[in-house]
Amino acid sequence: MSDEGRGPASGTDETLAADYAPLAAELAARDAVGFVAVGDRFDDDLRWLTRFSGPDRDYAFVATPASHSDAGGDRSGDGDDPDNADADATGVHTALCAPALFDEQARREFPGDAVRVDDQGDPAGVRAAAALADRDAESGTVLVPRGIPHDAVVYLERAGYDVASTDAVERARETKTDAEIDRLRRVQRAAIRGIARAEAVLAEATVDPGADDGAGAVRWNGGVLSTERLRRQVNEVLAAHGVRDAGNTVIGAGATAADLHYTGTDVIRPGETVLLDVSPRGPDGYYGDVTRTFAVDPDGGWERRAYLAVEAAREAALEAVAAGVPASTVHEEAAAELAAHGFRVDSSEVGFTHSTGHGVGVSLHEGPSLGDDDKLESGNVVTIEPGVYDPEEGGVRLEDLIVVSDDGFEFLGEYPFSLAPRVREESG
Amino acid sequence: MSDEGRGPASGTDETLAADYAPLAAELAARDAVGFVAVGDRFDDDLRWLTRFSGPDRDYAFVATPASHSDAGGDRSGDGDDPDNADADATGVHTALCAPALFDEQARREFPGDAVRVDDQGDPAGVRAAAALADRDAESGTVLVPRGIPHDAVVYLERAGYDVASTDAVERARETKTDAEIDRLRRVQRAAIRGIARAEAVLAEATVDPGADDGAGAVRWNGGVLSTERLRRQVNEVLAAHGVRDAGNTVIGAGATAADLHYTGTDVIRPGETVLLDVSPRGPDGYYGDVTRTFAVDPDGGWERRAYLAVEAAREAALEAVAAGVPASTVHEEAAAELAAHGFRVDSSEVGFTHSTGHGVGVSLHEGPSLGDDDKLESGNVVTIEPGVYDPEEGGVRLEDLIVVSDDGFEFLGEYPFSLAPRVREESG
Repeated sequence: MSDEGRGPASGTDETLAADYAPLAAELAARDAVGFVAVGDRFDDDLRWLTRFSGPDRDYAFVATPASHSDAGGDRSGDGDDPDNADADATGVHTALCAPALFDEQARREFPGDAVRVDDQGDPAGVRAAAALADRDAESGTVLVPRGIPHDAVVYLERAGYDVASTDAVERARETKTDAEIDRLRRVQRAAIRGIARAEAVLAEATVDPGADDGAGAVRWNGGVLSTERLRRQVNEVLAAHGVRDAGNTVIGAGATAADLHYTGTDVIRPGETVLLDVSPRGPDGYYGDVTRTFAVDPDGGWERRAYLAVEAAREAALEAVAAGVPASTVHEEAAAELAAHGFRVDSSEVGFTHSTGHGVGVSLHEGPSLGDDDKLESGNVVTIEPGVYDPEEGGVRLEDLIVVSDDGFEFLGEYPFSLAPRVREESG
Repeated sequence: MSDEGRGPASGTDETLAADYAPLAAELAARDAVGFVAVGDRFDDDLRWLTRFSGPDRDYAFVATPASHSDAGGDRSGDGDDPDNADADATGVHTALCAPALFDEQARREFPGDAVRVDDQGDPAGVRAAAALADRDAESGTVLVPRGIPHDAVVYLERAGYDVASTDAVERARETKTDAEIDRLRRVQRAAIRGIARAEAVLAEATVDPGADDGAGAVRWNGGVLSTERLRRQVNEVLAAHGVRDAGNTVIGAGATAADLHYTGTDVIRPGETVLLDVSPRGPDGYYGDVTRTFAVDPDGGWERRAYLAVEAAREAALEAVAAGVPASTVHEEAAAELAAHGFRVDSSEVGFTHSTGHGVGVSLHEGPSLGDDDKLESGNVVTIEPGVYDPEEGGVRLEDLIVVSDDGFEFLGEYPFSLAPRVREESG
């Protein structure tokens, strides 16, 4: 497979910074001397705060209220990056306590004020306390995310701080900047190419009624087609486009299509629903998320009825989306449509078993949830993904990623859908 | 690219259980009423303890000392999997508090005693406390991993438990079972196929001295070859073999080869070292880890000298490996060889800037570290990866994955090496 002519999944159109203003406001509102986040490369709050793709061991981010000296750049002793003093612009001074062997990368990636490389052998919580002390925050309340590693809290408390939790970062992440939307759009485009590959494979596939001792199977490229073979086809395309599948390529067929997170191996049989949920992660940490459902040689039974219902629910949900609308309204519109089509919406096993959507960013699942009553805001990026399932029949889901705007929404990537897979001009 | 004839990266040769005996011993030694781990799919202790590949939100694992009733299967009220009562065999009773929408998958994957689905809307720490209480552990000491989310500790303390940390799980993970070694070998084999693809691309590549305004560049398949183009080639092969690149495909060229974690885009120039470190993750959560270094049209300068030194250090390190040998001895042997070849071993910028290796399992980096004085044990799986770097010249590293045995070691996958890339019979 050639990689010529493919755009990068990471771009330089917009600088990817972090907006520290909500943190500054939270520090002021709660009269706190600082905010500390500790974690490793798998901590999404830290990824958003630092833009640093660090190692699989703990490091720390520390924010403190801006002081007069920050504006002048006279910040001796609190870092090694004195030319990057823009703390006054956001009302907060930010430091990354970089892990050993990652100094260079931290300086390249961190958009904040200071990269600290002192005492890299100490636990991240100890280093965070030292960073606070260097900012003249000797005692007082330090805000932390709810799930901060417990040992970091122990170190902060030993150093004399009171620790209290905040969800300010989680909340700030829910509204995306143009640069973030740009990244999400790129990853979603790659995810769609993965779906296009799967649809092309299914469109080429043939039915072998006698295969597998008469149970029947779908064949492709000389062999029986399984969910695992199809998954590898999708994941190869994701890799070719510079994004990683992140273990998230869920493909089920028939009964396993009713399993919301199926990543195993199942033979694909004629007529049964093949559900593909592709959620890769791009090089900047942002996810895509798209689902399509197909059937090879469908017979017009449950799956056709389910498909029509889901299509109608998708339309109803999308029509309800706009800034100012309670998120739960979108879910209720989808649920009402599915109920009107005769599907259950009150069970965790059969029918519409999940919420209509969730936020997507540096986490695959983040706020806002379309099950909550909070109002949608312009800049929220959410999935719209109604679906119905029946362990006896299969599962049908259609999922797209949208950004909420004042008068509605915009798709982050579009791809057509139909129950029968088609060879499409644009695929490949 | 076809997927025919490729073995699965996940296998069924050996059942992948978790060995809970060390946990039972730790509970007894510390007179604790239970052990609790809380985290999401990115928590590797939890992955090892539960074999459950859960969602990106918190769930809990709870171990309690086995009681007489466990052996008889009379465990009403503490789970929904009464047929799986083997607690007596390990001296410990284990439960997974499964997150909502994941009941089915938890039952399929968890090898322990009980899958709990009660109160799935509650925080994982609250559910863990309820699971402890159901096991008649109403108060006393509960052991937790050092990095457990702080809110889980708060909930356990509110429920009346004293919380103390343990590294028992971390330590238990260092010695691999045959089933784990089987998984590691499969992933390493896929990683090696990725390296083979990169070597084939580099062997096909041509030198264009006039490219890039006279700076010179390596060309392949009609365009200038960059680290990103090469990375996509590698990652496509990983995907085709059913493993994911996990964002770990580090490829640097020249100066960026001296950056230990370079995942950016850099033009590959004639003669400079191209360092490829490939560490994919398999479907069961185990990692591979292999590094090779090549140069297209090398001129016999620094890179040739570095290559010979690293080759000799690799030999020296491997010769030192055996159960009972202090891990640091392996590092010292490699360092002595590099020093004898005239490379610095005391700097974090130039020469041999890191340790000779680390353990690999469900974490890419785990114990034992070859920098520590602990003795190697049979069943440790570690990398052997000497390397030398010079930001002015480039970087050379050779890395293999081995399992330690009583009389030496065994490679988990083998692949030849040479500075000049070759077309090899076995590649592809």
